[in-house]
Amino acid sequence: MIDLDKVKNTIEKHQLIDLGDKIVVAVSGGPDSVCLLHILHKLINEYNIKLYVAHLNHNFRGIEAQQDAQYVNKLCDELNVMCFIKSINVPKYAKEHGLSLEEAGRVLRYLFFEEISENVGAQKIAVAHNLNDQAETLLMRLIRGTGIQGLTAIHHRRHNIIRPLLDITRRDIEDYCRFHLLQPRLDHTNLQPIYHRNKIRLQLIPALEEYNPNIVETLAKTAEILKVDSDYLDLQAEDIYKILIKKEKANRLTLPIQGINKLHPSLLIRLMRLVAENLVGKREVLEYKHIQILLHLISKDITGKSIQLPMGITVYTNYEKLIFTTETEEKVSFSYPLIRDSYTNISEINGRIRYYIINRKDDFQFPKEAFKKAFDWDIIKGGLLVRNRKEGDRFWPLGMKGTKKLKDYFIDCKIDRHKRDRIPLICDDEEIIWVVGHRISDLYKITKDTTRILIIEFEQLNNV
Amino acid sequence: MIDLDKVKNTIEKHQLIDLGDKIVVAVSGGPDSVCLLHILHKLINEYNIKLYVAHLNHNFRGIEAQQDAQYVNKLCDELNVMCFIKSINVPKYAKEHGLSLEEAGRVLRYLFFEEISENVGAQKIAVAHNLNDQAETLLMRLIRGTGIQGLTAIHHRRHNIIRPLLDITRRDIEDYCRFHLLQPRLDHTNLQPIYHRNKIRLQLIPALEEYNPNIVETLAKTAEILKVDSDYLDLQAEDIYKILIKKEKANRLTLPIQGINKLHPSLLIRLMRLVAENLVGKREVLEYKHIQILLHLISKDITGKSIQLPMGITVYTNYEKLIFTTETEEKVSFSYPLIRDSYTNISEINGRIRYYIINRKDDFQFPKEAFKKAFDWDIIKGGLLVRNRKEGDRFWPLGMKGTKKLKDYFIDCKIDRHKRDRIPLICDDEEIIWVVGHRISDLYKITKDTTRILIIEFEQLNNV
Repeated sequence: MIDLDKVKNTIEKHQLIDLGDKIVVAVSGGPDSVCLLHILHKLINEYNIKLYVAHLNHNFRGIEAQQDAQYVNKLCDELNVMCFIKSINVPKYAKEHGLSLEEAGRVLRYLFFEEISENVGAQKIAVAHNLNDQAETLLMRLIRGTGIQGLTAIHHRRHNIIRPLLDITRRDIEDYCRFHLLQPRLDHTNLQPIYHRNKIRLQLIPALEEYNPNIVETLAKTAEILKVDSDYLDLQAEDIYKILIKKEKANRLTLPIQGINKLHPSLLIRLMRLVAENLVGKREVLEYKHIQILLHLISKDITGKSIQLPMGITVYTNYEKLIFTTETEEKVSFSYPLIRDSYTNISEINGRIRYYIINRKDDFQFPKEAFKKAFDWDIIKGGLLVRNRKEGDRFWPLGMKGTKKLKDYFIDCKIDRHKRDRIPLICDDEEIIWVVGHRISDLYKITKDTTRILIIEFEQLNNV
Repeated sequence: MIDLDKVKNTIEKHQLIDLGDKIVVAVSGGPDSVCLLHILHKLINEYNIKLYVAHLNHNFRGIEAQQDAQYVNKLCDELNVMCFIKSINVPKYAKEHGLSLEEAGRVLRYLFFEEISENVGAQKIAVAHNLNDQAETLLMRLIRGTGIQGLTAIHHRRHNIIRPLLDITRRDIEDYCRFHLLQPRLDHTNLQPIYHRNKIRLQLIPALEEYNPNIVETLAKTAEILKVDSDYLDLQAEDIYKILIKKEKANRLTLPIQGINKLHPSLLIRLMRLVAENLVGKREVLEYKHIQILLHLISKDITGKSIQLPMGITVYTNYEKLIFTTETEEKVSFSYPLIRDSYTNISEINGRIRYYIINRKDDFQFPKEAFKKAFDWDIIKGGLLVRNRKEGDRFWPLGMKGTKKLKDYFIDCKIDRHKRDRIPLICDDEEIIWVVGHRISDLYKITKDTTRILIIEFEQLNNV
């Protein structure tokens, strides 16, 4: 039987209820939720709380579901508690949203509870998970594979959701219902298509009781102990997140590699998960194996190397930084012939370019702008064009002793990988004559023999 | 079948072997250890290692045990590895030391391995635990009840003990033995009285495989992930231990309560366990429930309240400090009549005391020493004695408005609880006239009417 003090102890230890709270109680009509309502009802004066009941008719079972609703309604009448009942087509919603029946049921339930909660101005939503649910969840997670966070199983409180019966065994709840002649309906969950959990409950737990008769309590205790550690690790990671992570754009976070290298892997995986949560809303998408891949990427120290993580997250190193982004890298590619004395638009990078030719005069002065350069016109072979880089491009930077791969030149200039495709290259029929914004080719520079001068000007229309 | 690269990957990831190591390989003759020896033998040149085999005859199975030893000896001959075989009576040792056969076997095995290791100057001892052992151990700990540390199960390396096969399944090991025609002996562990583990292996793991066919790998992976977190938490706790813990004596550690109050419970339990390890050599003696009791003690902020923890550890608060000690508090109790002009020894506290009487003169000066005081001799009723405190003692401290409980006086003076019994009290037939080292009684002070002066001197013979 349930000792009321035990429930109160849970409530106080985990600060589930504040004096004066309005609480929406989720009641299916099964033993757990009926017991929860009955117990909270006993505590109304002590905590000065006001209760509201929310019952969702899942429409899985036709007439029986109607009877569940009637039962809950009657119970609320007896207890003088306001009752909200909503009927909803779970299979339809599941189909429409591509969810399993179980997932759809959960989504709709919590949407409904939140809706009632908002309507009545409630601070809390009480749900009836018990100690056996706790143990079963830990086992399910363990069997599926998980880390410490998964093993912490169900929490006594998460935001406004509270679970006052989480320390009470199912057996005690059933005894309580019998003692108080509550006659709850058959537990809905037994009839919901959560076959896996039922198997754990009906087969695995009894098998484990042969090894330890108190296996349910033992597992629940383990979940509780692990939660303390898990909470601490999360707090540590959140502190470090605030210090290290910089949000450059909505979908682009950076963190300094130097900071990462000092971090213990335990924190690093959590940090990465917080990044994932920020980018795609789900921290679970990053698993331990992804972290190992990331560590490998960092240790290699190769700028520009990127890896693809789940949910469209791309990570790449960029000199001292590790960059996480969900930007879809639209491949930029352009190539336009230039027309003398006219502007040529490069819409891909929102810029334009023109060239003209002047005769050399004694008072010729080199243009001082980064985006305006002078070349020896008589060396140009064929027509001029502007394009972005291609595989194998080479280039002879002004002042150097020979050509080098354009890629290496970009690396030397520490140009972000994702910017490289957007840099215009001015070419004649044979060579790159100018990497716009950077150097011109040594081969085309003005010499004492130059008589006709080619001037090329690039103009950025606005910052992209 | 075992991919040799997989074992090498384990060796390198966990830094199990350094180039040039001498390694003692524990070989029972079963598939695991035979495979381990065979694989390490293949790696001799690559790691420049030297192998020695240690085989312990447990004497559980008579003739079969002899055959095991012969088999191991023959295998070592073939591989040209030096083999040490020792026969020992495990049941006898178990009986003599009050251990289970399993415990005794483990103690003796590792003693033997360490002995060989020392003799040959080996850096490492290789043992043959595999991935299935890992999964089984995690389950055993989970069923028994544990925290994160227990769930990290078996470690790839602990001090000089290394486990190169810990990432390899039992099935792969057996395949390897068949492929290399090694014909290992029946695995000893199946015949050792470790019934519980065999049941886990033969019944529980197959049952869990119905839920997840890769349950062994999944559980081993969980152990590995949890180890990362557990290691981090341990490191954090060790750092804090160094900062907060003060070792006052070999069996007495203190930590500031202010420091504790700021600590997250996750670190606090680890800190307490490190204290326990320092005091009694075993950190596991402190469980989560003990920490909760400790937190309660601290929150109450009662100086002098003590609690008893396992293995004779006493904890009590003392003003700003929490004191952990294994000191057995020998109850001090003494009472001696004083003799005029003679020393009375108080052996219990290693002090002596005497008194004498002088006539008042105009140039009388009050003694300035803490342990020498003057009283009005004519107020003394009956004889003088020195004793330590008893329940109910009251006292009128000089300058105060009336009597108070001696206990309260001690508390006001912030006198350590364990020191209170050792403070001499000088009494006449009715009253405490002096709390030695502290105040005299207001009732016995020298007044303008005093004619004869009682001088009492206490002398500490050496510091206790």
